[in-house]
Amino acid sequence: MKTIDVCLSPDLMHLYNVRDKTVVVVDILRATSCMTTAFAHGIESITPFAKLEECLAMKAHGYFTAGERDGKKVDGFDFGNSPFEYMHESLKGKNIAFTTTNGTQAMVKADGAREIIVGSFLNLSSVEAYLRNGANNVLVICAGWKGKVNLEDTLFAGALVELLKDHIEPDCDAPLAAQHLYNLAKNKLFDFLKDSSHVKRLNRLNIQKDIEYCLTTNLYSVVPVLHNGKLVIA
Amino acid sequence: MKTIDVCLSPDLMHLYNVRDKTVVVVDILRATSCMTTAFAHGIESITPFAKLEECLAMKAHGYFTAGERDGKKVDGFDFGNSPFEYMHESLKGKNIAFTTTNGTQAMVKADGAREIIVGSFLNLSSVEAYLRNGANNVLVICAGWKGKVNLEDTLFAGALVELLKDHIEPDCDAPLAAQHLYNLAKNKLFDFLKDSSHVKRLNRLNIQKDIEYCLTTNLYSVVPVLHNGKLVIA
Repeated sequence: MKTIDVCLSPDLMHLYNVRDKTVVVVDILRATSCMTTAFAHGIESITPFAKLEECLAMKAHGYFTAGERDGKKVDGFDFGNSPFEYMHESLKGKNIAFTTTNGTQAMVKADGAREIIVGSFLNLSSVEAYLRNGANNVLVICAGWKGKVNLEDTLFAGALVELLKDHIEPDCDAPLAAQHLYNLAKNKLFDFLKDSSHVKRLNRLNIQKDIEYCLTTNLYSVVPVLHNGKLVIA
Repeated sequence: MKTIDVCLSPDLMHLYNVRDKTVVVVDILRATSCMTTAFAHGIESITPFAKLEECLAMKAHGYFTAGERDGKKVDGFDFGNSPFEYMHESLKGKNIAFTTTNGTQAMVKADGAREIIVGSFLNLSSVEAYLRNGANNVLVICAGWKGKVNLEDTLFAGALVELLKDHIEPDCDAPLAAQHLYNLAKNKLFDFLKDSSHVKRLNRLNIQKDIEYCLTTNLYSVVPVLHNGKLVIA
């Protein structure tokens, strides 16, 4: 049976060998939720950057620039990190250069994986099916918050472990812990998360609407996959 | 209100500032359970070492040597990592040099903390009271398994968060996750852990009796504290 493991923080990535794996990068609040939303609304590609300056430099190549630092939109960028910004008609067929505090950093750390895809509650079922039908073992990388473990990414990892349990076996304790937490929270994701540190942080930024949206399951069926440094639809 | 945070792996210690904190080092299977047992049976001191050779060199200074690598007793050492080895009359008043795969490494990483104590289910209530009555914020360091997060140490951290909830506030998501897991598992610790990776690993070593013992709560009231590089009773 294939296996699924969960890396609860990008700062633990040195413990995992990704070479033979499909890696699912998760940053529920809000990078990978934005990416899923953008592809569902016709974006052509998203290129992730760890560094702000590299991202900004893509403007000269006709890219829109997008992302955040510490939850806030960056000066000079076209778009921030709210999924509602990625629903506009005008973005259809366009290319975006994207950088965020945690999500794009996690993606960079997955470099060398056989395959890298983007997961969020918004495309949960499609990611699940993609992994179930795929040939590779799976590693879910939770973006966390500046290296610290967070609840919302852990819950999404747990959702994948739970939904795939008849097909893919948990490899270690982290997937089991995530699975238990998801089963505890699944019927009340928003309430379960309301005491979490990141939700409190984001509430201070007045984006409760974003949070509720990012915790909605299966709105879209796109699965963004990294090809030659660009995310495109699988 | 004081705060409690949980570091789920020693490999995440760079994210935490320990200078003003009481750090609780946890390696339920089995280092900190052995230490608690040894002090409850009259051991004078335990000196933790990260390196095998340094530990072995203490023989020349009249110390007993103890510990394990990969769950197995080390050649030339007096004792292994089973708590039942630390109950003998002959150990009363003696000093032990101790090294283990994970537990003593975690202790070394806590260097610089205001205070370092040792926790296990065996002395749970006493550790809880010690932290409640203490002046410092708390950080629980889970020893994990070679950097990876494990369930048993996470559950112990969660037990402290739960028991202290009216007196000490969770600082981040990791303590909340641990608390949820503990509340889910608390009436069936052994069953909850039977699928965990470390319990499976230890079952292969035929030490089910050790595991059951290490999951027993409040057998002892000792709280081992590090003073000048040696653990002694608080």
